Amino acid sequence: MTQNTKNFVETQYYTFGESPNEITLKSGEKLGPITLAYETYGELNTDKSNAIIIFHALTGDAHVAGWHQGDKKPGWWDEMIGPNKAFNTTDHFIICVNAIGSCKGSSGPSSINPKINKPYGLSFPVVTIEDMVVSQKKLIDHLGIKKLFCCAGGSMGGLLALKWSVLYPENVSSVIIIACNYRHTAQQIALHEVARQAIMSDPDWQKGDYYGKSIPANGMAVSRMIGHITYMSEASMEERFGRKLIKKEKLGYDFSNDFEVESYLNYRGTSFVQRFDANSYLYLSKALDYFDLSEDGNLIELFKHTDANFLIISFTSDWLYPSYQSKELVKALKTNDIDISSIEIKTSYGHDSFLIEIDGQSKLIKNFLNKVKEEKY
Amino acid sequence: MTQNTKNFVETQYYTFGESPNEITLKSGEKLGPITLAYETYGELNTDKSNAIIIFHALTGDAHVAGWHQGDKKPGWWDEMIGPNKAFNTTDHFIICVNAIGSCKGSSGPSSINPKINKPYGLSFPVVTIEDMVVSQKKLIDHLGIKKLFCCAGGSMGGLLALKWSVLYPENVSSVIIIACNYRHTAQQIALHEVARQAIMSDPDWQKGDYYGKSIPANGMAVSRMIGHITYMSEASMEERFGRKLIKKEKLGYDFSNDFEVESYLNYRGTSFVQRFDANSYLYLSKALDYFDLSEDGNLIELFKHTDANFLIISFTSDWLYPSYQSKELVKALKTNDIDISSIEIKTSYGHDSFLIEIDGQSKLIKNFLNKVKEEKY
Repeated sequence: MTQNTKNFVETQYYTFGESPNEITLKSGEKLGPITLAYETYGELNTDKSNAIIIFHALTGDAHVAGWHQGDKKPGWWDEMIGPNKAFNTTDHFIICVNAIGSCKGSSGPSSINPKINKPYGLSFPVVTIEDMVVSQKKLIDHLGIKKLFCCAGGSMGGLLALKWSVLYPENVSSVIIIACNYRHTAQQIALHEVARQAIMSDPDWQKGDYYGKSIPANGMAVSRMIGHITYMSEASMEERFGRKLIKKEKLGYDFSNDFEVESYLNYRGTSFVQRFDANSYLYLSKALDYFDLSEDGNLIELFKHTDANFLIISFTSDWLYPSYQSKELVKALKTNDIDISSIEIKTSYGHDSFLIEIDGQSKLIKNFLNKVKEEKY
Repeated sequence: MTQNTKNFVETQYYTFGESPNEITLKSGEKLGPITLAYETYGELNTDKSNAIIIFHALTGDAHVAGWHQGDKKPGWWDEMIGPNKAFNTTDHFIICVNAIGSCKGSSGPSSINPKINKPYGLSFPVVTIEDMVVSQKKLIDHLGIKKLFCCAGGSMGGLLALKWSVLYPENVSSVIIIACNYRHTAQQIALHEVARQAIMSDPDWQKGDYYGKSIPANGMAVSRMIGHITYMSEASMEERFGRKLIKKEKLGYDFSNDFEVESYLNYRGTSFVQRFDANSYLYLSKALDYFDLSEDGNLIELFKHTDANFLIISFTSDWLYPSYQSKELVKALKTNDIDISSIEIKTSYGHDSFLIEIDGQSKLIKNFLNKVKEEKY
């Protein structure tokens, strides 16, 4: 795409919950004011019935598509969103909101606490997936949207879509859940806990009070390296890197990097430090670990009030959110006679498939959204 | 077992390679003197034909069975070694040697460098699996053993057994390889590299020169936590921990541990710091990552000179050394018409199965060793 034809977009902000109208969080703590950073694509129609909200993953942001001025690459799911793409902006008004707790414009630990005019740090309250959804509902209300055409997301985004469907069943016509689970398992919690310990044991972390000082760069890098391994599959790592040496000479016989896979991970770890806040990693990973849709009761009971159509996608090579977990969810939904399409796509990309495997997902999502339109609109 | 009937054993030491007879390592560097810590069980017979060498895994030691005075638990594979056990000490003389590079009595980075009367630290040369095998061969020669009845090991121990079979084909009658690969893959290297970075980015690591000062405890703990996740399986973690809370009350809404799986990992990480040397973790993990049996040429060609019998065991739930890797090795061996038994044992314990799944392994190993005896002795 040339600069001339680029679809420029700007991040917008919505602030609410100023004192004394703070939001009460799941923990019982209050938070306010809350700012949400969000972007929109396409036009909201007159009866405001064509809105789709897309949720980002752990380290994502509201910039899901299009270009910011000066960007070297477009939004993180640009291949999926635009005219005639899976989420067709000719027909639909697409919204993407940065989750609270993150560091991409919405309120989080790196935001300025207006009461003390300093970053919150750990004084920012621990937020849950439910708290994120409740805050997003405020934005949807603010935009005057009564019912969302669709809630969609992969990974953490899928948890948000799921929670939306259960918390606001009357306000959601359809739900797309990709590479996701209805509750975090022991292994998923374990992997996050190691990442958190890597950050919190970095002396520069300073109990979260590092803003304006040295950031806990080493801990962040290690936590991101762990993340990257879990986002790929054994097969995709082997295909991409195998035992390829950095310099095609010989082993170094020291503790510098010998293999391409090592330098790739170190590069990804180090560059992550520049673009994400360590405390936000703690907050968001904790929100994921706390997520258990079934905690409020029987998983089947939870969906009693929803009449949304569901599309559930998983990937064969995803070992972080293995397909069997999606299948458990499908089973619970089917027991409620919910209109559900589910598919396990064969890919080798692991959990990252939801960002990489565009063609297969696009076809499924287009068909699904067309069906929802025909049946419900 | 009561104190009275306990089978006490003592670690022995063998030192060789004093100047000017240092050993030349794979890297070209020289190392000497080299001390090997080893233990033996049972009696060497008159013609010295009943010796079995067992190799330990990454953080293991020579104390494979029996009890040291004051021990609260026996050696790490005690259930497999003893009278009428899988490795029957009534018939066999069992040897287990601590690998060089480790910290359990054999020469490694925490050993005193006699030239400067200080611990080596990073001045200890990087050693390979081949270097470990070459050093072990010196001990076997010293003990007057011409041909080993069997070489056996799981995980890193399997790599050592494999290398023995290729490096000294005339000195090995049979080989048992468990939960192993013939070369480290990208994912295996990646997981080790994250662990190394966790250690090396700990400010207390001090480029390996921390002896007598603060040890890099935080980095070590994180690296061990990663290790533990890879040693278990998703299913065994879920079965053992699921989402069980530490206190059966409610979530803490802070960054302390909420879930049992978190506190388990933190406990394992912290306790590891007390029993293993951080530099040794770097050295041994690097040796594993460097391991590629096929680097010297075609994998099939490598086994041309061996007439050993092979037993190769893998486990269905082992995702660190998945069964397909053992199967590739089996294929190469079969192409050479080598007498080989291979089996994939169904377990849920993941890579740790080789330490836990005793009954199935014992039966297979007993049958295998009996067959070797009948056919070759």
